[in-house]
Amino acid sequence: MPQPPAAFTELKLRLEKIHDLDRVQAVLEWDQWVMMPAGGAAARVEQVASIERARHERLASPEIGDLLEQVRPYEDSLPPDADDASLIRVARQDYEKAIRVPAGLQGQITRASSLAEHTWETARRRSDFSLLLPRLQEVVELKRRYIECFDVAEPYDALLQDYEPGMTRAEMERPLEQLKQRLVPLAATIAERNHGVDDSCLRGRFSLESQRSLNHAILNTFPMDSSWWRLDSTAHPFATAFASTDIRITTRYSGSDISVGLFSTLHEIGHGLYENGVDHALERTPLARPASFGLHESQSRMWENMVGRSRPFWRHFFTPVRAAFPTQFVGIDPETFYRAVNKVQPSFIRTEADEVTYDLHVILRFELEQAIFSGDLELADLPGAWNERFKALFGLDVPDDARGVLQDVHWAEGSFGYFPTYSYGNLIAGQLWQAAREAIPALDPQLAQGNLTPLRAWLRENVHRHGRKLTASQVVERATGRPVEVKPYVDYLTAKFGDIYGLD
Amino acid sequence: MPQPPAAFTELKLRLEKIHDLDRVQAVLEWDQWVMMPAGGAAARVEQVASIERARHERLASPEIGDLLEQVRPYEDSLPPDADDASLIRVARQDYEKAIRVPAGLQGQITRASSLAEHTWETARRRSDFSLLLPRLQEVVELKRRYIECFDVAEPYDALLQDYEPGMTRAEMERPLEQLKQRLVPLAATIAERNHGVDDSCLRGRFSLESQRSLNHAILNTFPMDSSWWRLDSTAHPFATAFASTDIRITTRYSGSDISVGLFSTLHEIGHGLYENGVDHALERTPLARPASFGLHESQSRMWENMVGRSRPFWRHFFTPVRAAFPTQFVGIDPETFYRAVNKVQPSFIRTEADEVTYDLHVILRFELEQAIFSGDLELADLPGAWNERFKALFGLDVPDDARGVLQDVHWAEGSFGYFPTYSYGNLIAGQLWQAAREAIPALDPQLAQGNLTPLRAWLRENVHRHGRKLTASQVVERATGRPVEVKPYVDYLTAKFGDIYGLD
Repeated sequence: MPQPPAAFTELKLRLEKIHDLDRVQAVLEWDQWVMMPAGGAAARVEQVASIERARHERLASPEIGDLLEQVRPYEDSLPPDADDASLIRVARQDYEKAIRVPAGLQGQITRASSLAEHTWETARRRSDFSLLLPRLQEVVELKRRYIECFDVAEPYDALLQDYEPGMTRAEMERPLEQLKQRLVPLAATIAERNHGVDDSCLRGRFSLESQRSLNHAILNTFPMDSSWWRLDSTAHPFATAFASTDIRITTRYSGSDISVGLFSTLHEIGHGLYENGVDHALERTPLARPASFGLHESQSRMWENMVGRSRPFWRHFFTPVRAAFPTQFVGIDPETFYRAVNKVQPSFIRTEADEVTYDLHVILRFELEQAIFSGDLELADLPGAWNERFKALFGLDVPDDARGVLQDVHWAEGSFGYFPTYSYGNLIAGQLWQAAREAIPALDPQLAQGNLTPLRAWLRENVHRHGRKLTASQVVERATGRPVEVKPYVDYLTAKFGDIYGLD
Repeated sequence: MPQPPAAFTELKLRLEKIHDLDRVQAVLEWDQWVMMPAGGAAARVEQVASIERARHERLASPEIGDLLEQVRPYEDSLPPDADDASLIRVARQDYEKAIRVPAGLQGQITRASSLAEHTWETARRRSDFSLLLPRLQEVVELKRRYIECFDVAEPYDALLQDYEPGMTRAEMERPLEQLKQRLVPLAATIAERNHGVDDSCLRGRFSLESQRSLNHAILNTFPMDSSWWRLDSTAHPFATAFASTDIRITTRYSGSDISVGLFSTLHEIGHGLYENGVDHALERTPLARPASFGLHESQSRMWENMVGRSRPFWRHFFTPVRAAFPTQFVGIDPETFYRAVNKVQPSFIRTEADEVTYDLHVILRFELEQAIFSGDLELADLPGAWNERFKALFGLDVPDDARGVLQDVHWAEGSFGYFPTYSYGNLIAGQLWQAAREAIPALDPQLAQGNLTPLRAWLRENVHRHGRKLTASQVVERATGRPVEVKPYVDYLTAKFGDIYGLD
């Protein structure tokens, strides 16, 4: 291996400090959603903006540009997989992206989104899209100007690539269209035979204190050092990492439905295990983060669904659940609980959807986003378009905007291009799950003993450790031998729900 | 009023962003001590350092220097008390201080202190000062280099002025020496008559959950909007503010002594009320912070002691205490509780000291600090010097270093010049308390009804709202008509403990 030149050492040092600022922003955001008293809101907006500005200035600086030029010969002398070559490659992508967007525009987007997000809360509460419309128009207008900063084949590509680097709209559309074609009939067949799945055991009165202890107890059996994470509750659960050994997981408890907290926690610990699993040698470099939102989501969905909604998992973990709420689960066995947490039922709210209908919610949003940015759909017509397509996909009439177009904050906060990564994550999860099962023949009995270590080790080795050294599609190809496909995930769903619902 | 020039607007904008970084550092530190899992420690050191570096670069920049020159005519055209004139004056002080200390030296101090702080934990646990000695020598050596950056009459002045801007060692020594001359005989007289005060009701078994509810319930009756603060527990309690409406109070509960949590909370809410009371119009300017550590401490000590250890206060607040622990307080009345929380007893640990002996602990440290930096005391001789002076002041033999020279983290973390502000704060508290009592004749009956609003209003008007617009001594002079004196505080102590202990 050639010795790194001084310019590389200098570049790395600067990138470390930029990374620190990036993680500090994560601290501010976590505190904001999990800890901050309401009085802190106004100052926090400014604090986040000041850190963002400091970070952007340092990244989009002539010094970084010069250093990136100086290290080209060193980069070319290394194999592309080498840590240093990967660091330079990824830093160059970040730099080239940063210099394209004027700091002023980024600031305008942040402010407009923040305003729209606040308006969204009111609009959703009153179920009145017209309140949000002007704010949303402003956000979309700014996003169009954002798109113009990039040299992309289609406008939507620039949005998507904030979440799924390197991917195009067309590349995303193909698999999600296939997925839709498979899910619509599957959901319809299950709806016809919707009998035999009783989820009433999930409803009742569950004290928050006992739920908190239960969720902590479950996570404590997970293969992640207890000094590396904490679990808190918040209105809209998320996971974040201030370092690979400082993981913050959040969850949300419902006093009347035990599944809300359990599956929020299992989803977020999936994200947390990924963040924690990135090779610790990459710490404080641009490689220390996950490769894409889709790959990140594949990990949360795998732990939530493939693991967390599996029969073997509950064979083990139903014991602590029953111990926490003994009177609630009199006469309930693990199999009943397993079926209950897998009940399929078309519904209006994405975040409450079962595995079979979930992606239809996502695809609906993906289609509408594309129509907005291709110019085919006026924002004023968004609620009508939503309700029409919803009827076509689910066979249900949307009763009001709160249960329709206003249910998610994403668009108000300017996160266009984010939704499809949820379904893309499911596809990846299906494919990785298939590969993991082949690689670990004893996976089911292990899960049934509460032994999550072998699966975690496989994921760390094949997915987590790479950080941003590999792209999401490179990770999938290396781990499974094939590009991202639809079939493994559909096969997984068909087999699982075929069994539960007695389909042929 | 003249219109502010463009340079002032630009200066203010830059200072706002610097202020944001300063408060972000406070967020990182709060999280570190209150929330962070142990695994986050290494990354957090770097994150704090990167923010500190970004803040220092922005403050000690030629641009700020130029702008400060450009606004001189505007500053001179205003009365010194005007917000804008104060802002320029204080910003110039901050700037001139920042440019004197090379970023490299500041970084070395931060790292050496961080290392010494970790070593201190081990040294204290093993009660072995020799473990700490080399680290402490390094810190003191760097602090000597820090002192050399300043043009001061005596080396110690440069240290003291980090906490008490503008004050000299000589100005601090005079009142503290007087105070010592009064406290030593007072403590001795009380020790002779130490009978009749039984504090056994404070000891027992107090569930942390009930203490938490009790402390929250007490704070909820305080005159500060509940959306402006939160209370958490931590090993070494402190208060901080991320904005004047985002106050973080921390406390520490003992399962066997109810007074630990109660008085930590009352102390820290005193700090919090000050931070919250700064004129909100000063938000995000260099004026938005408290004037000095001494003035800050005067507020915490006033709420902890003058209010929180007063007879009228417990006439009201003993009710919720008894309600939280009904079996513990059978047959105990408010007067017994009042006397219990005021028991005077010489002891080894500063943070557990009563009001009469507390300042003797502080003065001991102040004297030793001065000897270290005047060159009269070698660090290797520090434990011996400590024990000798302790015997002279308290009449007790220090049994080991853990209960002697190793008990506080301050020196290890490089906080020389901090200790005397504790006693200076007590003096100010005594003087302000006297003035407040004169201004609010019904103060005692108000406290006895749990009505803290008039006192808070007086403090806000006379102390808090000024932020850094006035110095600590200006605040005291305006509020009380006199410079800081020793007599009011000694009079307060003599009257209070004379009554409790039946002295003449």
